Amino acid sequence: LSLTVRSAVAIEKETPENERPETFLRESESSSSSSSASSVRARFERMIREAQDEVCAAIEAADGGGRFREDVWSRPGGGGGISRVLQDGGVWEKAGVNVSVVYGVMPPDAYRAAKGVKDRADDAKPGPVPFFAAGISSVLHPKNPFAPTLHFNYRYFETDAPKDSPGAPRQWWFGGGTDLTPAYIFEEDVKHFHTVQKQACDKFDPSFYPRFKKWCDDYFYIKHRGERRGLGGIFFDDLNDYDQEMLLAFSTECTKSVVSAYIPLIERRKNMPFTEDHKAWQQLRRGRYVEFNLVYDRGTTFGLKTGGRIESILVSLPLTSRWEYNHEGFLAVQECIVGTHHLQRSGVMV
Amino acid sequence: LSLTVRSAVAIEKETPENERPETFLRESESSSSSSSASSVRARFERMIREAQDEVCAAIEAADGGGRFREDVWSRPGGGGGISRVLQDGGVWEKAGVNVSVVYGVMPPDAYRAAKGVKDRADDAKPGPVPFFAAGISSVLHPKNPFAPTLHFNYRYFETDAPKDSPGAPRQWWFGGGTDLTPAYIFEEDVKHFHTVQKQACDKFDPSFYPRFKKWCDDYFYIKHRGERRGLGGIFFDDLNDYDQEMLLAFSTECTKSVVSAYIPLIERRKNMPFTEDHKAWQQLRRGRYVEFNLVYDRGTTFGLKTGGRIESILVSLPLTSRWEYNHEGFLAVQECIVGTHHLQRSGVMV
Repeated sequence: LSLTVRSAVAIEKETPENERPETFLRESESSSSSSSASSVRARFERMIREAQDEVCAAIEAADGGGRFREDVWSRPGGGGGISRVLQDGGVWEKAGVNVSVVYGVMPPDAYRAAKGVKDRADDAKPGPVPFFAAGISSVLHPKNPFAPTLHFNYRYFETDAPKDSPGAPRQWWFGGGTDLTPAYIFEEDVKHFHTVQKQACDKFDPSFYPRFKKWCDDYFYIKHRGERRGLGGIFFDDLNDYDQEMLLAFSTECTKSVVSAYIPLIERRKNMPFTEDHKAWQQLRRGRYVEFNLVYDRGTTFGLKTGGRIESILVSLPLTSRWEYNHEGFLAVQECIVGTHHLQRSGVMV
Repeated sequence: LSLTVRSAVAIEKETPENERPETFLRESESSSSSSSASSVRARFERMIREAQDEVCAAIEAADGGGRFREDVWSRPGGGGGISRVLQDGGVWEKAGVNVSVVYGVMPPDAYRAAKGVKDRADDAKPGPVPFFAAGISSVLHPKNPFAPTLHFNYRYFETDAPKDSPGAPRQWWFGGGTDLTPAYIFEEDVKHFHTVQKQACDKFDPSFYPRFKKWCDDYFYIKHRGERRGLGGIFFDDLNDYDQEMLLAFSTECTKSVVSAYIPLIERRKNMPFTEDHKAWQQLRRGRYVEFNLVYDRGTTFGLKTGGRIESILVSLPLTSRWEYNHEGFLAVQECIVGTHHLQRSGVMV
């Protein structure tokens, strides 16, 4: 489904703004009427913008010296975003925390495929389907090779009814996840990170953590290397088979758990002494991060193909990375893989 | 055509070899009978292996200290390759020169699409189509930011007749190209490089250089950036509408022109003094190289998806690269683009 929906969508070119608007929703949807202000769209936007402020404040506090640079942008037909990037700070090499609201149009075939409607030759062809998407997306690459990279992304997606069938119901989905990519494994770090993910999940459904942990392991897989990108976390996509309010609350809980899952690991590792060899290994692992994001990551490849804001999309790439031919560090990769298995077997990964 | 052919092919896992075999052709094709030894397959393999020796010798001579490391590998069902990589040398950061011979099988639909055969529901479904491919592929990344990166690749492709139609003709294609990617533009370098390409082309057909130069400009285009990867050269693919002997001779001429097109530029630039800013700009341009290769390059994405030898495929990536958010070097990109237009307008690019 997702691949179909995401394959043939085009969005408008963005324009820079001098200040943050109250909302990126279209005026008709952001009026002060109670139904508009309490819509899932409006509440999701408020949630991700608050989360952006909280995460950025926590990053700046832990970084010591670095400050986020902010870029605000909008699109003529509605929507826009706030990109914040802290580069070459005291602790982080590159930290990006972006929110965006997108109004777009998907081809009718994608919508019909999504709804499971069979195409009949005698049908009148339906019109294009407008959609709405809002999300927060972040990748945080620290300098110290013992401090892990974090990625998180939470998003909400809605279609309007197609123009030829005004009575058809609106479709909606939630997606997202939080995952950890260390260059070196510290069991206590991995355990802390996964424990926070599990606690957030368990407040809503006991099946969530095991299901979304497996989904994360399966998704962040560099097929051509036969390696996982990192040590997992949670991931879910196209989620709509639960109560909408419950999923909004769940996405909110996951987003609010980012700081407590990640910042303690940074505090433990940010001042650890390291050698040039440690740094070289980190740089090679960064190369794997680039490979995953440019070759497999849906958000990245979708963004690049549909004309999204390039600097926001590629802020996920590390500041520096390295590709050595046949690096003699296969042992270390093995250690990393064995480490994961060991952690899972021994129950450390909760 | 190419995208179809290349989308659903799988090849066997390679195994390391201790020494270079006389040929990677299957035994039945490499016997001493004159017809086998003079086949286009056999002659193309000899040509690319000689070219690999010549280019590597020229690189080592210009590098001063660096030496190529060689890895030989084969596949159980026939075929194999020789990967040579010089890393962290005196002049080159990373220089890879690989040859490979591949026997594979493509799905019948791809073959039928290639031949323009319409699918009819009452047809018996044809069997899979065996194919043969041989090629030389090289990317050379120098250390000095004023010394340009070179890429070249020449390949020959053949299908057997499909199993259900033994009388059907064998299909064949040639493909390849040589292109230059400097971080800084020196008109005399660009002019020399293009002059050598034009001379090689003009020996065969006056239409080749303008046609293959445009094909190169169109192919090495980073769509999401709206930028070309470099300053062009020549590129052609799926070429079979000329005499086969002529195209073999043309591919040979192009391959043999690599040393005279490139090494003089290296000699001019390899010892030029540079600053940290020059190096940082080179690293950002390297990031663009990574983006093109992982997102758009057919050979790379094909290789990653079909289980090719990963270390050989990704030797094209630079040793180090860098992604800065909203780098204030847009001016320099502009200069690069303006430079290209200027060179074309002024006739410098022959």
